[in-house]
Amino acid sequence: LNRSPSALPNWNESVRFADDLFRRLRCATASDRGILRPSYGTGEQRAHDLVREAGETLKMTPTVDAAGNLHLTSAGASPNAPRWLTGSHLDAVPDGGNYDGAAGVIAGLAVVHALRAAGITPPRDITVIGFRAEEGSSWFDGRHKSHFGSRGLLGQLRVEEMNVARSLADGSTLYDCIQRSGFRPEQLGLGRPCIDIASVYGFAELHIEQGPLLVSTGFPVGIVEGIRGTTRARNARCTGQYAHSGAVPQDDRKDAVFGAAEFAVCVEEAVERWAREGRDVVCAMGRFHTDVQRHSLTKVSGEVQFTIDLRSLDEGLLHKSKQFLIDNALRIGSRRGVNIDVGSVDIAAPARMSRPLQAELARCAASLNLSARVLASGAGHDAANFSAAGIPTAMIFVRNEHGSHNHLEAMDIKDFSQGARLLAELLLQPNPLHSVH
Amino acid sequence: LNRSPSALPNWNESVRFADDLFRRLRCATASDRGILRPSYGTGEQRAHDLVREAGETLKMTPTVDAAGNLHLTSAGASPNAPRWLTGSHLDAVPDGGNYDGAAGVIAGLAVVHALRAAGITPPRDITVIGFRAEEGSSWFDGRHKSHFGSRGLLGQLRVEEMNVARSLADGSTLYDCIQRSGFRPEQLGLGRPCIDIASVYGFAELHIEQGPLLVSTGFPVGIVEGIRGTTRARNARCTGQYAHSGAVPQDDRKDAVFGAAEFAVCVEEAVERWAREGRDVVCAMGRFHTDVQRHSLTKVSGEVQFTIDLRSLDEGLLHKSKQFLIDNALRIGSRRGVNIDVGSVDIAAPARMSRPLQAELARCAASLNLSARVLASGAGHDAANFSAAGIPTAMIFVRNEHGSHNHLEAMDIKDFSQGARLLAELLLQPNPLHSVH
Repeated sequence: LNRSPSALPNWNESVRFADDLFRRLRCATASDRGILRPSYGTGEQRAHDLVREAGETLKMTPTVDAAGNLHLTSAGASPNAPRWLTGSHLDAVPDGGNYDGAAGVIAGLAVVHALRAAGITPPRDITVIGFRAEEGSSWFDGRHKSHFGSRGLLGQLRVEEMNVARSLADGSTLYDCIQRSGFRPEQLGLGRPCIDIASVYGFAELHIEQGPLLVSTGFPVGIVEGIRGTTRARNARCTGQYAHSGAVPQDDRKDAVFGAAEFAVCVEEAVERWAREGRDVVCAMGRFHTDVQRHSLTKVSGEVQFTIDLRSLDEGLLHKSKQFLIDNALRIGSRRGVNIDVGSVDIAAPARMSRPLQAELARCAASLNLSARVLASGAGHDAANFSAAGIPTAMIFVRNEHGSHNHLEAMDIKDFSQGARLLAELLLQPNPLHSVH
Repeated sequence: LNRSPSALPNWNESVRFADDLFRRLRCATASDRGILRPSYGTGEQRAHDLVREAGETLKMTPTVDAAGNLHLTSAGASPNAPRWLTGSHLDAVPDGGNYDGAAGVIAGLAVVHALRAAGITPPRDITVIGFRAEEGSSWFDGRHKSHFGSRGLLGQLRVEEMNVARSLADGSTLYDCIQRSGFRPEQLGLGRPCIDIASVYGFAELHIEQGPLLVSTGFPVGIVEGIRGTTRARNARCTGQYAHSGAVPQDDRKDAVFGAAEFAVCVEEAVERWAREGRDVVCAMGRFHTDVQRHSLTKVSGEVQFTIDLRSLDEGLLHKSKQFLIDNALRIGSRRGVNIDVGSVDIAAPARMSRPLQAELARCAASLNLSARVLASGAGHDAANFSAAGIPTAMIFVRNEHGSHNHLEAMDIKDFSQGARLLAELLLQPNPLHSVH
């Protein structure tokens, strides 16, 4: 079924509007190296101020919710029809780049800019949201989940978490940081959404790709099929016995390094096996270290601490891999006389993107003559929380070089233009969840 | 050939003399946990003072050489016959135990004590030496070999080393530390032995075993066949690429942890293979760590630093293992797209103990009805430097629980008694290098 795309004759002007906004955002939040927008910090607030101002020039109605998220609404043709939410976060990891998060907010504004320029009233209200604190894990310590802003909005942020998470800058609790920033943690603590979920049609998030797939395969834009869930061990360790590295016979040693190394190789081999079976899976053991206070060239090491971050779209595999880790830690540890303890292993379910919206994005891309690749998101996103809340959710990825979470991230504005144009097309469909074709 | 042992009817008194000396040494150099005798530091000097005083009560003639080693000489029957040297070091690792080193010095004094009590003049002069700074690696930084005292005595300590080695306590050079302690680094720098090597008959060192073999096999005393040499990589690293732990496909990663783990498993498998072939070998990779400043649960790690300490009595295997490490680092690194660089790999040759003296020790043990086990020393000792200088060298190990280099080391005075008695018997033989049997 071929369709014509909506007419947005001055789209390039809207892209220039976006490009200018990116530039001003970079200047307002630049650090020595990259960007400084701490969750619930000054740089993040500057970004919110700048975006709010831009939204107001587009006659959008601003509100701020209890978590401090910024909502900018542009009225649609049917005020009572369920509305679209779109957007992303405005904070960034330490020394991060200008696009991770911000691209999704600015894309929403560019769409509204283009509709106004074309004199088009969209079928339903569009609310562009700038979330707070998606990168909370980089700025707050303690055992908590991240995505404070979107989870706060959706009633998913618990009081315990707000009291456990502590600012790495000054040690104050997340609860206090939210309050000090002028928002209402006590209301968030009630566990109720800040918006009427029933009045939401869907959530669409544009984000730069944080992996290399669009670059390596030559696609400017991606359609996300799902956000990988995780099986995570944050405090795993292999405990052996410190000993003289020359005087103790090899067979009498309880060498934690060789034990942990064998376990790592065993985990990697399992991941490769699962991948060969066609299952979606990636895995890293990012922290892996002997005790810097006690290790030495001339000692058999008595301890290795490590982490495991295994991700998959396949929830069954996440559970299977948890059991695999526990079983093989025991097996290898027993055989070697060391104790391999993976500690508590947490599973976070994968977030499937709405199938009707994925199909609609593919049709929109075709009508725009835009080559889009379907791919999984390995990183977590605010979108995952909307999916978990039962809201039909879609994600568009924009090609980006050098990964993200570093100051080298590089998104070409031409690729952004194509991703944002695809977003506009989706938001202009009368009823993409129930398209007839 | 059965022999009767020498008559030392009051040996138990000499053991009590030694036991008392151990007790006073412990009191004089006790720290919060264990013993504090830093190389060229106050605790080491206290030990030297105490031993010198004890030697003087035995009418031994004291001298101190340019490196600060203490020589206590007891005259033998033939003043012109080549003399015996015996002894060990008087420093200790941080929070070490009371016996590592000191047992060998006190054993020499106990022998002289017993000879005097029995009215025996030994065939040749016996000089008991208390070495300085055998544990120099624990107290001095920089790229240097250890055993400063015995190597200084033998003319093996180079000026460059004395200028590169720096005190971990205050950063001053070894050269300055030796000078400040009242000794003569400028003389050591000439590279000439402090004693007339030609006048030395042999060197015999008693030391506690630092491994568990005598304990596990039930022998109070060991006869050392050799001191393992080493193949060492002090600055090896596996370099990959930091990346998002979720967003990058597994095949596109350059994961330094999995690369280093595969290499570690490969090294351990080779060591096990060599051991099955009957070759003497042990190996540890004691430091093995991701970068604590940069690693994270959610990152593929871009770097692992590690060390390799492989030891063997078999010099051929030391060279073969060096090539193995280099070849397999390259092989595994190339296949995985990471760079495994073992850095500079240094080989220190093994030190063989004199075969005639080993045989003589076995005969002496038999005559004393003492069960002694032949074993390798995995740890380095001052004795290795005497062997390297071409001096016939012997080592006696005394059973010791809990290893060494920690405050838990535990030598039973009864085992010490047997080891020291064996030493006495060796030193009383008229010409053990050329025994007729």
